[in-house]
Amino acid sequence: MNSLFKTIVLVGRPSTPTLKEPILRLVEMLPTHGVRVLIEQETATEHQLADCQSVSRDNVGKLADLVISLGGDGVMLGAARLCAPYHVPLVGINLGRLGFLTDISIASMEEEITSILHGAFSPEDRIMLESVVVRDGKEIDRQLAFNDVVMCRGNTGAMIDFELFIDGNFVCSQRGDGLIVSTPTGSTAYALASGGPILHPSLPAIALVPICPQSLSNRPIVVTDTSSVELLLTRAHDVHAYYDNQYDCRLQAHDRLTVRRFRNTLRILHPHGYHYYDTLREKLRWGEQFV
Amino acid sequence: MNSLFKTIVLVGRPSTPTLKEPILRLVEMLPTHGVRVLIEQETATEHQLADCQSVSRDNVGKLADLVISLGGDGVMLGAARLCAPYHVPLVGINLGRLGFLTDISIASMEEEITSILHGAFSPEDRIMLESVVVRDGKEIDRQLAFNDVVMCRGNTGAMIDFELFIDGNFVCSQRGDGLIVSTPTGSTAYALASGGPILHPSLPAIALVPICPQSLSNRPIVVTDTSSVELLLTRAHDVHAYYDNQYDCRLQAHDRLTVRRFRNTLRILHPHGYHYYDTLREKLRWGEQFV
Amino acid sequence: MNSLFKTIVLVGRPSTPTLKEPILRLVEMLPTHGVRVLIEQETATEHQLADCQSVSRDNVGKLADLVISLGGDGVMLGAARLCAPYHVPLVGINLGRLGFLTDISIASMEEEITSILHGAFSPEDRIMLESVVVRDGKEIDRQLAFNDVVMCRGNTGAMIDFELFIDGNFVCSQRGDGLIVSTPTGSTAYALASGGPILHPSLPAIALVPICPQSLSNRPIVVTDTSSVELLLTRAHDVHAYYDNQYDCRLQAHDRLTVRRFRNTLRILHPHGYHYYDTLREKLRWGEQFV
Amino acid sequence: MNSLFKTIVLVGRPSTPTLKEPILRLVEMLPTHGVRVLIEQETATEHQLADCQSVSRDNVGKLADLVISLGGDGVMLGAARLCAPYHVPLVGINLGRLGFLTDISIASMEEEITSILHGAFSPEDRIMLESVVVRDGKEIDRQLAFNDVVMCRGNTGAMIDFELFIDGNFVCSQRGDGLIVSTPTGSTAYALASGGPILHPSLPAIALVPICPQSLSNRPIVVTDTSSVELLLTRAHDVHAYYDNQYDCRLQAHDRLTVRRFRNTLRILHPHGYHYYDTLREKLRWGEQFV
Repeated sequence: MNSLFKTIVLVGRPSTPTLKEPILRLVEMLPTHGVRVLIEQETATEHQLADCQSVSRDNVGKLADLVISLGGDGVMLGAARLCAPYHVPLVGINLGRLGFLTDISIASMEEEITSILHGAFSPEDRIMLESVVVRDGKEIDRQLAFNDVVMCRGNTGAMIDFELFIDGNFVCSQRGDGLIVSTPTGSTAYALASGGPILHPSLPAIALVPICPQSLSNRPIVVTDTSSVELLLTRAHDVHAYYDNQYDCRLQAHDRLTVRRFRNTLRILHPHGYHYYDTLREKLRWGEQFV
Repeated sequence: MNSLFKTIVLVGRPSTPTLKEPILRLVEMLPTHGVRVLIEQETATEHQLADCQSVSRDNVGKLADLVISLGGDGVMLGAARLCAPYHVPLVGINLGRLGFLTDISIASMEEEITSILHGAFSPEDRIMLESVVVRDGKEIDRQLAFNDVVMCRGNTGAMIDFELFIDGNFVCSQRGDGLIVSTPTGSTAYALASGGPILHPSLPAIALVPICPQSLSNRPIVVTDTSSVELLLTRAHDVHAYYDNQYDCRLQAHDRLTVRRFRNTLRILHPHGYHYYDTLREKLRWGEQFV
Repeated sequence: MNSLFKTIVLVGRPSTPTLKEPILRLVEMLPTHGVRVLIEQETATEHQLADCQSVSRDNVGKLADLVISLGGDGVMLGAARLCAPYHVPLVGINLGRLGFLTDISIASMEEEITSILHGAFSPEDRIMLESVVVRDGKEIDRQLAFNDVVMCRGNTGAMIDFELFIDGNFVCSQRGDGLIVSTPTGSTAYALASGGPILHPSLPAIALVPICPQSLSNRPIVVTDTSSVELLLTRAHDVHAYYDNQYDCRLQAHDRLTVRRFRNTLRILHPHGYHYYDTLREKLRWGEQFV
Repeated sequence: MNSLFKTIVLVGRPSTPTLKEPILRLVEMLPTHGVRVLIEQETATEHQLADCQSVSRDNVGKLADLVISLGGDGVMLGAARLCAPYHVPLVGINLGRLGFLTDISIASMEEEITSILHGAFSPEDRIMLESVVVRDGKEIDRQLAFNDVVMCRGNTGAMIDFELFIDGNFVCSQRGDGLIVSTPTGSTAYALASGGPILHPSLPAIALVPICPQSLSNRPIVVTDTSSVELLLTRAHDVHAYYDNQYDCRLQAHDRLTVRRFRNTLRILHPHGYHYYDTLREKLRWGEQFV
């Protein structure tokens, strides 16, 4: 029986020599299921996989029926931004410790990927964010984010001032290091470090988590994922918008950063037996009391 | 033009002598719009309103087309539990400082209530919780809550141990003072004091906020309002379930407390011009920096 | 060479049958160093140690040159209150997992206690608290605490209102579940669960940590250990003062609870090689990142 | 009767045209008490005070018997670093809203300064920090700070990794945005925004407050002010040390940042009637409940 997915693209974490061996194992294994394997360009170059057909980042989503990311949660975030615009599902293989998103280990990947190729998986759709920066009435940047869009100060150490609007309604002025606009996926990343709540991945929600706010009453707020979140920067010496902490855009005073749910969700394929709370419990070491 | 609501029940905050005057003002004003006015029994007794027709708490929801609560957020919580089972909408008049829920002041109540009677209002549907305690396989308590269901220790000061399940999946064991299961409405009450996030009222969500957990990694979690939240008490010397902090049920080890969204929402009628974020900003004093 | 300590009292955790064996080992071992061994009365009774000389709790401090507690941090707290008034040093043996205070395991206790008897130890002096309740001008309760004095609500679930004074200066009115007054020792116990900071044991400080305060601006405060901390209860339905969470006193409205550093410190003898930060890192699992 | 202080230097907040008028008032008033007035160079230049004698920043501490800062807490921090090395006391005048440190308003400054000149003041000594950066065995930067020394990430958004040692003992490895090393004075500034406790100014303590730590168990720690706090940067793309958020030093991987209490304290002169808790209550709006 042949794979449900005809063309699969492999995307690896950059600067990770140890990935070559597992990639070669997949390059060998996948065709035995009738799959055509492509390697994302940079990954192919890094590991000198000249014999394999490669594909540029821009074309990954256009050609793939499935993307397999190898590395950890970080590479999965980047792969998600390639997949979501084209409704391509994504599977994550972790190199090392279990991730929140990457739930297949290299040791068992042949077996688990084989099961997935033949339909034995639990699909999970997660929201992503689309962020737009408008300066002087013109759009100057548009990005996707799977974890979060973060507006925060840079090197100068100076506090920033901004106004927060939700669906056009004024919410508050804030002074501080910045604000995290997070998906449920991002709620266990930077937003958690900054005091935000954990949001179940199926919750249709966006969390707004202030970073070191200069007011004790500014607390995390969770709104529906149909909300339009607008940040108007009123004072800024050196402020940036960060997308999944992987790309950034330098902002100026009076810039407007608008964040909305992206029109498509991202589909993650989990092996059977995946349970969100098991991952959470494992990653956060729940159950260990200090007294 | 006659009122959209034929029968209106007034519910007052107990032990509040100053409520008599505004109640009498409503008793006089409402019939001029063709409204039949009933007074909730205990309120009628407290203020010696023998001339008015009274109605027992049990019958408030059955007879009313609209309930007006007078007092503050506390009396509104109790009125909500009377209204929701019968799909009766609710309006809150505050005595004193603006509440999160009660957004009409006594000074302007005739004018604002008149507008509402003739359809000039913004309806808002909010979820409530239904909580069931099962002991030895038998249901021993079933309650509604508008803010929260709180399982926590009583006088002994001893930590409690419990296991948390969501939709039948084991989430974690916790030791601490207890757990708050909160609606979006309750997210600005006790849950906020215990470190929980603010949830927008339209978010279909339930927040789980630990109280003084004996593990630094136990953080607030927000799940969809279709979730079944189950607390299994594994060690308990003196533990109670509190509903909106107004009723309680004493629990024993091995009791199961299950909390779900109640089948009906509660409809609050706001005067035009109501904006949730304005209330939040006013109540939480947003915008005041400490530096 | 004989022990530096002539008379040693053993105090065991109640209701712990497995303690009999290690107690008997100490009863056998200690006299070989010229030590006279006494058993705290309740411990002696529980383990039917009729052959050993026992001593009532009240006399432990008067007769001992050194007290050895067996169990965990809980029994150590109780033993500390017996030792401190008489300047008797204390050693803690843990049964099971390493405690913050009890740093000798049963497996190695003969060896480590022997070293201590002959002077190979690191002494550490820690402050304790003395708490007094005054009602209608009369002292009605006076207690020592090693971890904390906690004023908090009991079963009714009602918030409490109190005023906080430090050295006679009004600090603030608070509404909430209560307040923790903690020593550095207690800073890794209940105060930590309630959001307080970790205080190094050598810091001459008292921490005031609010429990679920109804104001977002009430934050933990740390004052010098020469401060007099006074709590005036202004509204109270069911409020208690807890001492080390082991004893309590029921309070009424208008009671004054005054907490000061106790005149004596408690001396803990650690085996050589003890480092506070090692214990902290081990107990709090520092070094494990969630990302 | 002549002033206790013979030579007074005025230091103003930069870029604040409205300061000229109060400076001129002081220039006129102070000599009537026998005081010689000097103006800090940059302040003199900004306000074109050519008729007044000016003094370079480097010489402020050498010449002054008292420094008066005009502006807010920010300018006071800078003035503190000029005063402390020479044991010169400092008085702060605020322009606008009451500060934590500047407790004399412009409206009443003549009266309050006059009282201070004649000995009617409450002196308060506060600790400062001295911070040293060592790279490849050589000291490359040495700075004073009155609020805090902050090691944190800059523009790249990348987490930083560092190891924390106290008095030469390894405490923990941390990953996150950085760490704040704060005096009691700084405990109501950035450290408070980042979740730290409030430390009474008389507490001989240094607080270590993590910024967005990637481990839920990393919590603020308070140590004695005799401690040597050492941060060893193990991974760094773009990391800075900030002193009072006014100066910074760019760090590299393997740099060691050592922070200790500065040998001198800074003496602030408060007008009679100053009470720390009154300022705290006013600034943090204590007493306002959200329910």
